[in-house]
Amino acid sequence: MSAPVILRDPVHGLISFAPTTPGPGDPYRLLVRLMDTREVQRLRRIRALGLASLAFPGGEHSRFAHAVGSAYVMSRYLERVRSLADELPAHDRIDSDWEAIALAAALVHDLGHGPFSHTFEHVLPDARMHEDWTSQMLLDPDTEVHRVLHEFDPQAPAAVERLIHGACPIRHLARAVSGTFDVDRCDYLMRDSHMTGVRYGLLDLDWLLASLRLYLPAGASAATLAVDGAKGLTAVEGFFLARFYMYRQVYLHKAVRAAEVMLRGLFRRLHELHDAGESVPGTPDALAAMFRGAQLSTEDYISLDDALLETAMWHYARGDDPVLRGLSQGLRERKLFKSVRVRDEVSDEEVRARIDPLVAELGLDPRYFAGIDRTKTRAYVEDEALVVLSGPRVQSLLEASPVIHGLASEVYTSHRAMFPTQLRHAAADALEDLR
Amino acid sequence: MSAPVILRDPVHGLISFAPTTPGPGDPYRLLVRLMDTREVQRLRRIRALGLASLAFPGGEHSRFAHAVGSAYVMSRYLERVRSLADELPAHDRIDSDWEAIALAAALVHDLGHGPFSHTFEHVLPDARMHEDWTSQMLLDPDTEVHRVLHEFDPQAPAAVERLIHGACPIRHLARAVSGTFDVDRCDYLMRDSHMTGVRYGLLDLDWLLASLRLYLPAGASAATLAVDGAKGLTAVEGFFLARFYMYRQVYLHKAVRAAEVMLRGLFRRLHELHDAGESVPGTPDALAAMFRGAQLSTEDYISLDDALLETAMWHYARGDDPVLRGLSQGLRERKLFKSVRVRDEVSDEEVRARIDPLVAELGLDPRYFAGIDRTKTRAYVEDEALVVLSGPRVQSLLEASPVIHGLASEVYTSHRAMFPTQLRHAAADALEDLR
Amino acid sequence: MSAPVILRDPVHGLISFAPTTPGPGDPYRLLVRLMDTREVQRLRRIRALGLASLAFPGGEHSRFAHAVGSAYVMSRYLERVRSLADELPAHDRIDSDWEAIALAAALVHDLGHGPFSHTFEHVLPDARMHEDWTSQMLLDPDTEVHRVLHEFDPQAPAAVERLIHGACPIRHLARAVSGTFDVDRCDYLMRDSHMTGVRYGLLDLDWLLASLRLYLPAGASAATLAVDGAKGLTAVEGFFLARFYMYRQVYLHKAVRAAEVMLRGLFRRLHELHDAGESVPGTPDALAAMFRGAQLSTEDYISLDDALLETAMWHYARGDDPVLRGLSQGLRERKLFKSVRVRDEVSDEEVRARIDPLVAELGLDPRYFAGIDRTKTRAYVEDEALVVLSGPRVQSLLEASPVIHGLASEVYTSHRAMFPTQLRHAAADALEDLR
Amino acid sequence: MSAPVILRDPVHGLISFAPTTPGPGDPYRLLVRLMDTREVQRLRRIRALGLASLAFPGGEHSRFAHAVGSAYVMSRYLERVRSLADELPAHDRIDSDWEAIALAAALVHDLGHGPFSHTFEHVLPDARMHEDWTSQMLLDPDTEVHRVLHEFDPQAPAAVERLIHGACPIRHLARAVSGTFDVDRCDYLMRDSHMTGVRYGLLDLDWLLASLRLYLPAGASAATLAVDGAKGLTAVEGFFLARFYMYRQVYLHKAVRAAEVMLRGLFRRLHELHDAGESVPGTPDALAAMFRGAQLSTEDYISLDDALLETAMWHYARGDDPVLRGLSQGLRERKLFKSVRVRDEVSDEEVRARIDPLVAELGLDPRYFAGIDRTKTRAYVEDEALVVLSGPRVQSLLEASPVIHGLASEVYTSHRAMFPTQLRHAAADALEDLR
Repeated sequence: MSAPVILRDPVHGLISFAPTTPGPGDPYRLLVRLMDTREVQRLRRIRALGLASLAFPGGEHSRFAHAVGSAYVMSRYLERVRSLADELPAHDRIDSDWEAIALAAALVHDLGHGPFSHTFEHVLPDARMHEDWTSQMLLDPDTEVHRVLHEFDPQAPAAVERLIHGACPIRHLARAVSGTFDVDRCDYLMRDSHMTGVRYGLLDLDWLLASLRLYLPAGASAATLAVDGAKGLTAVEGFFLARFYMYRQVYLHKAVRAAEVMLRGLFRRLHELHDAGESVPGTPDALAAMFRGAQLSTEDYISLDDALLETAMWHYARGDDPVLRGLSQGLRERKLFKSVRVRDEVSDEEVRARIDPLVAELGLDPRYFAGIDRTKTRAYVEDEALVVLSGPRVQSLLEASPVIHGLASEVYTSHRAMFPTQLRHAAADALEDLR
Repeated sequence: MSAPVILRDPVHGLISFAPTTPGPGDPYRLLVRLMDTREVQRLRRIRALGLASLAFPGGEHSRFAHAVGSAYVMSRYLERVRSLADELPAHDRIDSDWEAIALAAALVHDLGHGPFSHTFEHVLPDARMHEDWTSQMLLDPDTEVHRVLHEFDPQAPAAVERLIHGACPIRHLARAVSGTFDVDRCDYLMRDSHMTGVRYGLLDLDWLLASLRLYLPAGASAATLAVDGAKGLTAVEGFFLARFYMYRQVYLHKAVRAAEVMLRGLFRRLHELHDAGESVPGTPDALAAMFRGAQLSTEDYISLDDALLETAMWHYARGDDPVLRGLSQGLRERKLFKSVRVRDEVSDEEVRARIDPLVAELGLDPRYFAGIDRTKTRAYVEDEALVVLSGPRVQSLLEASPVIHGLASEVYTSHRAMFPTQLRHAAADALEDLR
Repeated sequence: MSAPVILRDPVHGLISFAPTTPGPGDPYRLLVRLMDTREVQRLRRIRALGLASLAFPGGEHSRFAHAVGSAYVMSRYLERVRSLADELPAHDRIDSDWEAIALAAALVHDLGHGPFSHTFEHVLPDARMHEDWTSQMLLDPDTEVHRVLHEFDPQAPAAVERLIHGACPIRHLARAVSGTFDVDRCDYLMRDSHMTGVRYGLLDLDWLLASLRLYLPAGASAATLAVDGAKGLTAVEGFFLARFYMYRQVYLHKAVRAAEVMLRGLFRRLHELHDAGESVPGTPDALAAMFRGAQLSTEDYISLDDALLETAMWHYARGDDPVLRGLSQGLRERKLFKSVRVRDEVSDEEVRARIDPLVAELGLDPRYFAGIDRTKTRAYVEDEALVVLSGPRVQSLLEASPVIHGLASEVYTSHRAMFPTQLRHAAADALEDLR
Repeated sequence: MSAPVILRDPVHGLISFAPTTPGPGDPYRLLVRLMDTREVQRLRRIRALGLASLAFPGGEHSRFAHAVGSAYVMSRYLERVRSLADELPAHDRIDSDWEAIALAAALVHDLGHGPFSHTFEHVLPDARMHEDWTSQMLLDPDTEVHRVLHEFDPQAPAAVERLIHGACPIRHLARAVSGTFDVDRCDYLMRDSHMTGVRYGLLDLDWLLASLRLYLPAGASAATLAVDGAKGLTAVEGFFLARFYMYRQVYLHKAVRAAEVMLRGLFRRLHELHDAGESVPGTPDALAAMFRGAQLSTEDYISLDDALLETAMWHYARGDDPVLRGLSQGLRERKLFKSVRVRDEVSDEEVRARIDPLVAELGLDPRYFAGIDRTKTRAYVEDEALVVLSGPRVQSLLEASPVIHGLASEVYTSHRAMFPTQLRHAAADALEDLR
């Protein structure tokens, strides 16, 4: 029996992935082999929080740490489901093969992320989402991830890919990989909160798992995720509150959004220049091809990581194009746009009409050096696949919890005009009546 | 009065740098301005632990987070010294100007680090140490750091530079910036331990500061660092134990050393190729110049960061040179050398005689694909500038503490033969009698 | 200058009460002297959570630890107000004398608690509340607390007493001692949560203080507590959520309520026996006098603590009266009543009609061995004295926060029928249709 | 299958004792039943740290919390041994019956403690140690603990009793219950450190267990406790360092020792008065009988707890005997003796000759109002039953660890003259040359 892999983790403490059976079919042996593939190792070079570390210096962890953490949370979920096996119909139990698929899915679910994580999905108007790239990497026979899975079981690459997208005969497992309340979110909420220091400690994994149940509605054939009474309610509220606070304080932080607006401007400029047939020194081939509209190979996509993009920005920061130069310097030296919140109903045109002339006066191009950021997300969207068991009663989360009820009426919005820091006062004055 | 800068930090919690006086002479205003310079921001792109994150996935924090943390620890030190002012001779007290210099020194003390931190100092046989580069950045009138310091006070760049190197009329302050027991170490031991998850929590900053004293020996003109009795002893033992454990478990971890041996091999190869006048595609200009023996300008040096080196390795990993290709792939995909510990007295030649033929058999060049790692560090070196006050008695740390006494007799050694992972069994057999 | 008192605390870490001025007028010198009085020391013998440690074995901390913690939180509040002094009208600033009064008030605010904390207030139908006893102890010239305060300033006893009851010319200070959001609650929520292990860590004191403001409404003469924008909102929501969770999980835990119902039954029995002129062996004189309707002297009241009551229960547990014996044994050996939740609208009579016969069948007196527990508390009651500042806007908490909005609609109720554990099944059956 | 008992604990987090088999033979079902016995519940009324909470206000936890914690650590040990079963000879494995005995032993190992824990063992010159009383409670057929164990298996009471005293056919299990390195110590070091706030966090249970091995020396028939290499060494050093720091900072704290000297004086006085045939009002019958030399019944001994003794002291504090009055008031109001450290070689007579006259001058009896405290404990005593495995080598802890080597040369001594606080200056002067 090979030695267990024991990792120390700032969030979960001791993580132990220990095979318990001798053969190659052991779920944890597969997991450990997958960790060593080059596609998974690439995640070390992609920061999980993208540009957010500009505002939260602690938030510098990579997607690799998060991938390992997600697999750990999955291992705890599997252990919990095992302890509930007596209450479950046969087809809702998870055998060793499904354990392997589930652990693999948790580890590789984010494989397709590009540089700076989510921002990269907006690199082009029609850029593919990271989920597509994850699928492609799993299914491409030339990737190491594919080969390792295929050796385990020729069906495994497809099974993992389907599970990540929510397709799985064991319904509750599909939800645990990809639902409102899944192992991915459990890990990233805990990790992002711990690392940024925005610690509300709301997400208590031990307690959450201890109060997790699987509930078989009368007449139904498949069990559904449930939490147990008052203690479970608290745990699950903690999960959604943690999400709420992370959005409010980190993910939608104005400086983080400002950096994203700058990066998108930079991508837009690159796109236009390439579209116009220009070549931009310092741009990696894969990126240049992408901006010219070519379809990237898996191999090319894999080459894209934070380091490559940082290096490209270093070139731009000393290059000839004033837009690329200005935005790259700003991002590298944390000279971020400032912003002013404007009322929801104010139109982009109205804002632009006030801001653009100010930017132009500075000799900057307002198409790139001014921006409007508008986001709108609900704090809680009812999820019928998660119920609360209170003695004999079965309730929806919304019925059972006034806290969730409060969240359900909350929409995070960010509607901000953004501009170079020199305009801080002028822009505030110009936008006074729109705030 | 400008708003305080409030940061959340995973290690220290809330960090607040708040100016308390209106003018530009306020120490915290200077600190905040320095944080925004491009040389300090560059530290975001250099991992504090270099290659150690390959073995400790949590240890991905940058030198920037550490620089801010060091300034925070300095602010706590200054506060403590203020509360002891009554016991101090006038010239040992710290006025507002010296506070500014001290905070600045704590923030910028590591400015000169190159990519992957310490390893980069071994890039060339005669490479300059990071301390030299720090000095150069401070004194070069073209850096932003210099300009900000110079605006504060034309003497400030030189004063900060000297303080970092231990020269300061206030002796205890020089020690706090650069001694066995300084703010830099306090922060990095706490931070590295927290982030790697190797948490022994031994370093309790609050307790350490509360038990810190300044002691004026009879007849002496300058106060010396001291700790107070039993409680102080525990705090200072905790500091040295933390250092001991971090060396034993992290800094000298065999996988970390293996990665460093690989990176040094890669640097050696680059040096030889450049020496031979070859040009190596993918090598950034500044690096190439360096390998050709040119003296780098400050500007060029500043361009070197982890991203640049990672990108170069990406090129090498797909390039023609088999040495650069093999080592770069290994580092990027965490296919690290394995190692076998050998006895201290065994000579390098003896080890090489066993290992090199095995490596050659694999078709690899033993000069790059085998290595011997040898380090030797004392766990505690007596520091006379730190004493223990036990009621009326003044003792050295070594006298006062059996724990320190134990550490003083400990030498960390790492003497290991390193080789590609395929040779794991063959090498172990070949070295059997040297272990 | 006398040495500071430095305490280690499981909740706040290092607590340092350090006089900064030489004379007896120093606020921290007064605080330290008050800590050494016998009335404050008595709080060591009264558990803060009363009977809750029966359900939460960690919750065994005393009112003394809480009193010290409250004084610490007050010291942090005073420090924060000092840093805001520039923004405050003169009469809202806190000078050294008021600091002393404020610290004293925080320390002694709970002096009047009887054995097992709140439960003791229900010992008699018309028992005095602990606040009254606190006042009496402060104003009685024979107590040590009074003497120490009087020596500090002859007006101090009355000033402290008034402040505890919310009367103080500095309005925001009155609120900080006794409001919806005061230092007492800050400490007990943090402490009770930490100790019981019901850790939601929601109350982040550092963050709360950093986002605290004092706001002077246009035309108003006195400042009002406020929190600053988004970061403050999160902090203050955390406070109310912590309170919500502690009620739901600890204070109203069914086993805790069961123990309280048992203790009240025991008090009722003692009252009736004493009313009837009987003497009950093992009852301390002060208690017996109280049950006979005598007015207790301060001295007598001070003698009452958990130890005295525990000892009395030890006597009862071996005594002749079957009611006192049964209830005392149950409480001492954690053989607590079980309970069944019944619908809110069900009348006590209806429940009694089902339960009492079952209890009587066991040979037990239903007046004491069955009970109905009914409580109703709002999770959040609007407090106009606390506002949220969002840029130029001033909002009430209810307007600003959907989470608070959710809480405001929540009423904790506990409506439970309680009975000896042997009846667990029979009672559940009998109450089936009332659940 | 009955529901698991889930407890929240401030030290270990979530503690779950979950039966996994249906019958009464399940180890965890036995454990839960034992927790509900009256002898175990009595431990709620005995503070684990005795008088130490006078110096460390957080240290108010009871022996009950510690007993539950010890059972939890045992459950983790059993789990670890199970995972090592493959490496163990058959008779070193632990079957379900031995699991039950082991868990029971961990829970009840301290049953025999009297009021204020260890101090009570010194109540009489020839008082029985708590271990004897534990045995008596286990073997007395009238205790609930006995009955529950006997129902489980008629051999169980004796088996548990023997295991607590180190007699068990599975040698490593005997060591885990009662060795230098046992579950009792693991829990109390963690708990006492956490609660007093003297947190060095050195004892990392997860890491300790993960590095625990069982080693079968060549030719031996029984396995011995071992730790694995460098990681294990760190974990086990942490254990002994934690012990070292707790002694130095808490258990031998001068104020704690002073309180113990006072309590012993009080016991001595009670003994003398009872010896002389006097009756002392307020003394509980069991205590009075004890002081008269009677052998206590189990029942009588069980009645003794902190509450009973506190109440007796309350009587003494208002009683006629000046010695009992003075000492009781001092203990209740934390007016503790002060002390001066004297050199080891100074004789008690010499100290007495200086101190006693000063005490007599105050009108106090020096036999009770002065004391000499002398203790001597080694920081580490070599334990051959614990070895370190470093690759192929087996070393003793002393050989393997310089830190342990340092500790082994350390003897904690406390040699202090103690006296009422009023004599603080006079006594210091009188003892000047003996310090």
